[in-house]
Amino acid sequence: MLNYSVPLDGLFHALADPTRRVMVERLSRGPASVSALARPLAMSLPAVMQHLQVLEASGLVHSEKVGRVRTCRIEPAALRTVEQWITERRTTWERRLDRLGEYLAEHPDDPDQRSES
Amino acid sequence: MLNYSVPLDGLFHALADPTRRVMVERLSRGPASVSALARPLAMSLPAVMQHLQVLEASGLVHSEKVGRVRTCRIEPAALRTVEQWITERRTTWERRLDRLGEYLAEHPDDPDQRSES
Repeated sequence: MLNYSVPLDGLFHALADPTRRVMVERLSRGPASVSALARPLAMSLPAVMQHLQVLEASGLVHSEKVGRVRTCRIEPAALRTVEQWITERRTTWERRLDRLGEYLAEHPDDPDQRSES
Repeated sequence: MLNYSVPLDGLFHALADPTRRVMVERLSRGPASVSALARPLAMSLPAVMQHLQVLEASGLVHSEKVGRVRTCRIEPAALRTVEQWITERRTTWERRLDRLGEYLAEHPDDPDQRSES
């Protein structure tokens, strides 16, 4: 039953920080240099680089240095991995609710339904 | 531009742990007592309670004690909050890719397209 999925650990951890989410938001609109990423953030370039390292370690972001400019890009497959996990939980919950609704409609006098209120 | 969204911090942090994700998976299939939640987990009940506290603090799980049994339930609105944030990033990225594809189809000889490779 336990599924110690290390990629999900890193992905959710990376997204638990508001600065890193701002960086992901920016990169979802297109590739950006590190200095462009840092511009709207009220922090030093080394601090931005540390956040970038967490994002890269998680697999959410990939960066490449050409000459003196490091360009960062989002990794859409990583976004989809997170989205899929969440969507599966949400749809499991909704399907259960649908089944419960059908059961209650078919058994309006079943006293057990109170335990599911 | 910065959006220090505290709920998202707590939600992503709560989901960054594999044990807590197993608990969320279980609860997406229906409410459960703390002892039922703990059964498949290789850890003490106090450790499970600590994870439960993190899940409750994030808003992902709500628990209620009736008599001697504490019953835990998923909070679907919290799942949707996480899903919405991720889906917005993914669709922003895909829309940008669509626009880029249209541009390249209309301007096949534009040398600037190489910067978007």
